[in-house]
Amino acid sequence: MSTPKHVAIVGASGAVGAELLRCLDQRQFPVGKLTLLASARSAGKTLSFQGKDLVIEELTGDSFAGVDIALFSAGGGISKEFAPLAAKAGAVVVDNSSAFRMDDQVPLVVPEVNRADVASHQGIIANPNCTTAITLMALYPLHQAFGVKRVFASSYQAVSGSGAKGIEELERQLRHWAAEGRGWDEEILPADQVRVYPHQIAFNALPQVDVFLDSGYTKEEMKLENEGRKMMHLPEFKASVTCVRVPVFRAHSVAVSAEFERPVDLAAARAALEAAPGVDVIDDPSSQAYPLAIDVAGRENCAVGRLRRDCALENGLCFWVAGDQLLKGAALNAVQIAECLL
Amino acid sequence: MSTPKHVAIVGASGAVGAELLRCLDQRQFPVGKLTLLASARSAGKTLSFQGKDLVIEELTGDSFAGVDIALFSAGGGISKEFAPLAAKAGAVVVDNSSAFRMDDQVPLVVPEVNRADVASHQGIIANPNCTTAITLMALYPLHQAFGVKRVFASSYQAVSGSGAKGIEELERQLRHWAAEGRGWDEEILPADQVRVYPHQIAFNALPQVDVFLDSGYTKEEMKLENEGRKMMHLPEFKASVTCVRVPVFRAHSVAVSAEFERPVDLAAARAALEAAPGVDVIDDPSSQAYPLAIDVAGRENCAVGRLRRDCALENGLCFWVAGDQLLKGAALNAVQIAECLL
Repeated sequence: MSTPKHVAIVGASGAVGAELLRCLDQRQFPVGKLTLLASARSAGKTLSFQGKDLVIEELTGDSFAGVDIALFSAGGGISKEFAPLAAKAGAVVVDNSSAFRMDDQVPLVVPEVNRADVASHQGIIANPNCTTAITLMALYPLHQAFGVKRVFASSYQAVSGSGAKGIEELERQLRHWAAEGRGWDEEILPADQVRVYPHQIAFNALPQVDVFLDSGYTKEEMKLENEGRKMMHLPEFKASVTCVRVPVFRAHSVAVSAEFERPVDLAAARAALEAAPGVDVIDDPSSQAYPLAIDVAGRENCAVGRLRRDCALENGLCFWVAGDQLLKGAALNAVQIAECLL
Repeated sequence: MSTPKHVAIVGASGAVGAELLRCLDQRQFPVGKLTLLASARSAGKTLSFQGKDLVIEELTGDSFAGVDIALFSAGGGISKEFAPLAAKAGAVVVDNSSAFRMDDQVPLVVPEVNRADVASHQGIIANPNCTTAITLMALYPLHQAFGVKRVFASSYQAVSGSGAKGIEELERQLRHWAAEGRGWDEEILPADQVRVYPHQIAFNALPQVDVFLDSGYTKEEMKLENEGRKMMHLPEFKASVTCVRVPVFRAHSVAVSAEFERPVDLAAARAALEAAPGVDVIDDPSSQAYPLAIDVAGRENCAVGRLRRDCALENGLCFWVAGDQLLKGAALNAVQIAECLL
């Protein structure tokens, strides 16, 4: 067993924070001391960890004395300000925000993809974008087998990706619709009740996640290419992505057409995915078995299925991958990175 | 004005049937006489058309005497059996099922794409698949400008595509969830209440529409390639598609990466779409304006947006198109075909 560590969670009161607590417990991470940190708004609230009630403290520049590992999940602004302070105080930061992901000095890690990169850290390690992490869980084993060149992908992203507020917004819209007894073709909400998303999320598909870049892509859509290049050490990798928010609570799904350097043998592709850690192959059309958002919710492993030779690419494979956005897409991967530090 | 026609609707009691009635009325189709036909189960029910109540008659082989135009929307089995009888009786059939779409003797038509093909009919004209029709509304004007080679597409398909039963199933699941006061992470329905879809559709994304082929694609997924080739007269056109059912009631959305023969100028692409009949360009990232399923529901025009140069294709364009599945994806297009016959 490793020496128990002093772990701090920044953003403990959020949706990812709750999952960080659960992952540390379930994976029996050697927690000697646990410090919960959040904004002044959440400070004073109590969270339970392994049967003990812990009071959330207000995050300040002095919060990290004696901390070994600091798990950040409180947005990019908080990370930019406090992660360097935590690192200076001697903690290793695992940061769930996008603040440091493309920083050359900061390793960006999915342990199943590039565990070795952890070693080069200088106090901060970045956790990738959720859709990117989930997609790479299936793409990377295929890359090892056939050499990936580019992908075309569309996402079906859950509202949990916007945190607890996103979940509440979908719930509120649907409960309002049900309570009012409205029909399926009636307007369900006055516009001023829409807050997290620019448009109604219930009964809709929003082709916008994150802000727009000059190219017309959103920031979210370029993360698979940018972060994928960095993690796979593949500077020529290309990814054309459309990121879409759908009325699903917790797990993301991604439809992918991937092109490879070498011919893709379907049986070899399946074998590569079956041998991959953290991946379940669920792929039996005859019994209508394929990965489903509601099935992977709450599960550590990502699921891949709908494997088929791509009919519009020479060395191509089509697949469908789903993963819990709060787990492999966030908290689980952060704790797995922390495990690499033990 | 054209001579008034004797129009028959087969499948009058279904979701598309209701929209056929509405389209005939709203578009002032010259209906002299209207005969409503359905299975014995629905016969005797009454529907209203232009202020008059019409009784649905049971569909038989003798239903088509004197009928000029027969609009079929009662599934492939009914079409296979009765469309030839209707044609024999002298009616021109516009068939909304997949029964005759790939038949060489049967034109398959989206009027904005291949109106001229109507003239070659021998009594039956096929209405294309809903996702195909909606996608081609945006793709065809781009093809005319740049010459399309292949597309990669993922759909976000509404439950109306499964007819009234699909709509009811999503409603039932959501009302049950709301009434039980369950949380967002609890199971919402016992399995035996799931009927139309093999899995829960609420809070989920189902990567299966229609049945699986040996290739691993579903029948639905190959329709864009097969029907697209036929309608665009483009035998080399390729389309790799993932069709996904989402908890949206009425309109389909499609994310498309399209590759063209010639370089794609973004302004020229926009101009081609703005000039295209039946298409609204909704594309202003700065005001978060893009096509939305809930906005196009009930509207005749399809909407296209999220236009951007594809970052993984040389002559590529990415776009997002949405259309009312019951209108351009079914009833409206059928009535537009009928208008070509006048």
